Amino acid sequence: MTTTTTSSWTKRHILSLETFTAEEYETLLETADSFREVLSRRTKKVPALQAQVVANLFFEPSTRTRSSFELAAKRLSADTLNFAGSSSSLTKGETILDTAKTYVAMGANILVIRHRQAGVPHTIAAEMDRLEGNVSVFNAGDGQHEHPSQALLDLFTLYQLLSPSSPHQFLQGKKIAIVGDILHSRVARSNLYSLTTMGATVHLAAPPTLLPREFQEFLGEKLVCHWQVEPALTDADFIMTLRLQKERMSEHLLPSLREYHQQFGITRDRVLLAHPHVKILHPGPVNRGVEISSDLMDDPELSLISQQVTSGVAVRMALLYLIGTSD
Amino acid sequence: MTTTTTSSWTKRHILSLETFTAEEYETLLETADSFREVLSRRTKKVPALQAQVVANLFFEPSTRTRSSFELAAKRLSADTLNFAGSSSSLTKGETILDTAKTYVAMGANILVIRHRQAGVPHTIAAEMDRLEGNVSVFNAGDGQHEHPSQALLDLFTLYQLLSPSSPHQFLQGKKIAIVGDILHSRVARSNLYSLTTMGATVHLAAPPTLLPREFQEFLGEKLVCHWQVEPALTDADFIMTLRLQKERMSEHLLPSLREYHQQFGITRDRVLLAHPHVKILHPGPVNRGVEISSDLMDDPELSLISQQVTSGVAVRMALLYLIGTSD
Amino acid sequence: MTTTTTSSWTKRHILSLETFTAEEYETLLETADSFREVLSRRTKKVPALQAQVVANLFFEPSTRTRSSFELAAKRLSADTLNFAGSSSSLTKGETILDTAKTYVAMGANILVIRHRQAGVPHTIAAEMDRLEGNVSVFNAGDGQHEHPSQALLDLFTLYQLLSPSSPHQFLQGKKIAIVGDILHSRVARSNLYSLTTMGATVHLAAPPTLLPREFQEFLGEKLVCHWQVEPALTDADFIMTLRLQKERMSEHLLPSLREYHQQFGITRDRVLLAHPHVKILHPGPVNRGVEISSDLMDDPELSLISQQVTSGVAVRMALLYLIGTSD
Repeated sequence: MTTTTTSSWTKRHILSLETFTAEEYETLLETADSFREVLSRRTKKVPALQAQVVANLFFEPSTRTRSSFELAAKRLSADTLNFAGSSSSLTKGETILDTAKTYVAMGANILVIRHRQAGVPHTIAAEMDRLEGNVSVFNAGDGQHEHPSQALLDLFTLYQLLSPSSPHQFLQGKKIAIVGDILHSRVARSNLYSLTTMGATVHLAAPPTLLPREFQEFLGEKLVCHWQVEPALTDADFIMTLRLQKERMSEHLLPSLREYHQQFGITRDRVLLAHPHVKILHPGPVNRGVEISSDLMDDPELSLISQQVTSGVAVRMALLYLIGTSD
Repeated sequence: MTTTTTSSWTKRHILSLETFTAEEYETLLETADSFREVLSRRTKKVPALQAQVVANLFFEPSTRTRSSFELAAKRLSADTLNFAGSSSSLTKGETILDTAKTYVAMGANILVIRHRQAGVPHTIAAEMDRLEGNVSVFNAGDGQHEHPSQALLDLFTLYQLLSPSSPHQFLQGKKIAIVGDILHSRVARSNLYSLTTMGATVHLAAPPTLLPREFQEFLGEKLVCHWQVEPALTDADFIMTLRLQKERMSEHLLPSLREYHQQFGITRDRVLLAHPHVKILHPGPVNRGVEISSDLMDDPELSLISQQVTSGVAVRMALLYLIGTSD
Repeated sequence: MTTTTTSSWTKRHILSLETFTAEEYETLLETADSFREVLSRRTKKVPALQAQVVANLFFEPSTRTRSSFELAAKRLSADTLNFAGSSSSLTKGETILDTAKTYVAMGANILVIRHRQAGVPHTIAAEMDRLEGNVSVFNAGDGQHEHPSQALLDLFTLYQLLSPSSPHQFLQGKKIAIVGDILHSRVARSNLYSLTTMGATVHLAAPPTLLPREFQEFLGEKLVCHWQVEPALTDADFIMTLRLQKERMSEHLLPSLREYHQQFGITRDRVLLAHPHVKILHPGPVNRGVEISSDLMDDPELSLISQQVTSGVAVRMALLYLIGTSD
């Protein structure tokens, strides 16, 4: 572990990628890389956060994401506390902010927060700053707003694959297609910031109900919107598929899963439109045969899904380390 | 850590404060004080209970209390096992005693038990003593009976605030008001023992349905009952508010939350009746605007709620340490 | 810890006892014995699986079995991750195999799997072998098929009690009665393999609806079926009772719990038929007064139930150690 890369880190919280600078992405990638190296050793632990407490406050359930944060914290030698919304005292009338403050009063140094309402982590972070308790807040997904660590693990997965000599603008010249329910996806929103900042051009593809025309203005020339999948895939270097929430059907935003797959599903035929070395990403869990045909998902030549999960632990270690050791 | 203070400790179990002696309160306060000092260090762990197993058997759910016990155990280097009533084999027909014995047979040294029936921890402790397995039982709340560690963290919070030269009778001359559903509160019951033993005079205030006249005989001259809140608050040094269970309404013991707040809620006006340096405690989670007005709860000059949570970890470390290292 | 005993271990997975050899049983018993000795020390931990990750994937809930695996893993210094079916992403459309792969991609080295469908652990193990990731799968109960670690802890409990000079055929000449719902019991199925391989003769007793005539052909001369309990108990050295699932009543396989107890329940009168030193086992949790009368269960001269639970931790440590350190 080099510490030189982290001396410039100033963020106490990980809330949103909207304000991430190119330098911060670069520091994160280099730090994650060194943790990836730690994970390949026989002894996979470092004492970086020894005696610190990471509290996972998941007001919206997610076993796989909580496990990833939990393992990242344990490998930094932190202690972890888990709070799940369902078994909580929230049903007893306490506010979310009260719950957060309770865990801080117990000794939590980092609060990892998932909530289905956008902005909850920001509100808690603002209160923590006001109280000057040196507590960090880590947004693990807030409503349809952002999911920074998911986008950063996607970025790190590409970084590992491309293995550039420097992280600086390492996606320059790359075309990345993001396909699916853009409108409701916090993963897509976070990815737009990170991918374009690192130099990529992003092509979004979705039915008009899931990709309103206003989206085009979001990030200017680095962003292109399509209401058909084919132009987004053509010559793409990477295809990012998004998870389709089945609730969209009951909201009449989509006719049927079958029809969605016919129009926007990633199939072997459609992959032929892309760059010969194209790779496919998905934040998981996958609805097999909906967002992507089942055989593509299992094709190690095409799918980066497993690498994304592995990157998740390294990236979360890096982020916890950066916010947990900055002043 | 000094061990001299603990040489006199003889209790194997923490079941009730009814039998706690003044000396035991003093030992506990001094031990908690030294753990409070441990928690302020950079390395917050001590190896006191290394390789011991603390099993949290919560037959009644409580995330915040379980987390506090879990963190206390981890900071003593114990391993923890969590059992939650809902996912239990109790639904399969096993008795509570069988569950407790199973965890002991696995290797648990300390059973932390919460159950909505009064007396369950005592029954389990009696069986453990009969089996001579050197196992400790810790009552984390049994029905409407007792919640010793909550009362002890209240006591420790006052001890820290007053910072007396000795814990001996350190509440002598203090007036403490306890306001709310006294009848159903295990927290109030435990506090009556600890506060009066340490010298305080306790004034209880509640509607007659929640504070029967028989209560007066409970502890004699150290205890005064009121069916209005104002005389209890007048010149009080500390105000302890109790959580109001919403079930009380459906049981027709209370007309409405609004009316309760009007008659017994702690408001800024009512606080003016108390001693100028009065502080407010609440075991949490708070029903904001019911037991206490929301702005008082957030006023750091008045509220000790956050300190209570912090004290909870130190007090539970001390208690686990005392029972886990006695013979 | 001697390592000589384990040099011959070749199994990567613990899926079924059907293919266990006598040598493997002997290695397991000797390894569990050395861990039993570790557990009797003041410091109960060994660094054998340090930095390894054991993921408990319990698609079917079982608090006691999960706690036993969790404690075994912690005492080998492994990190643990818990996944419970109910809070899972399975409801989101992911396959079980996808879930398993996700935990492996995060870094899990051993997957402990419980599922109500027979064969799930085998399917996952086959996929893990195909992927050549050096991951072990441990069947913690699959449908009505097998529950290897339960049968092995039964075997180890008998081994400890009999304390033979060598584990070789140490049950030779012993009569063991297994009483209860044989047809649906994965515990019984696994025990048939282990007990007969180690030399015992096994007598099964159950109503015809729960013990079909075809069972007789299962293991030849080492196995005798009875549709009454008395001949099975006569001169038995050990009585293994099985848990009766209450669902059997609604499936019309049993008239009533009371009638079952009258016909097949282990009572003090029936125990008189057995060998004077007979001991009783039960995998737990017990339906008191159904499979066994309540007083027998609590009689330390007769019941091995508590020892079985203790053996469980040592046996699971041994199995995790053997599969976690083999190449």
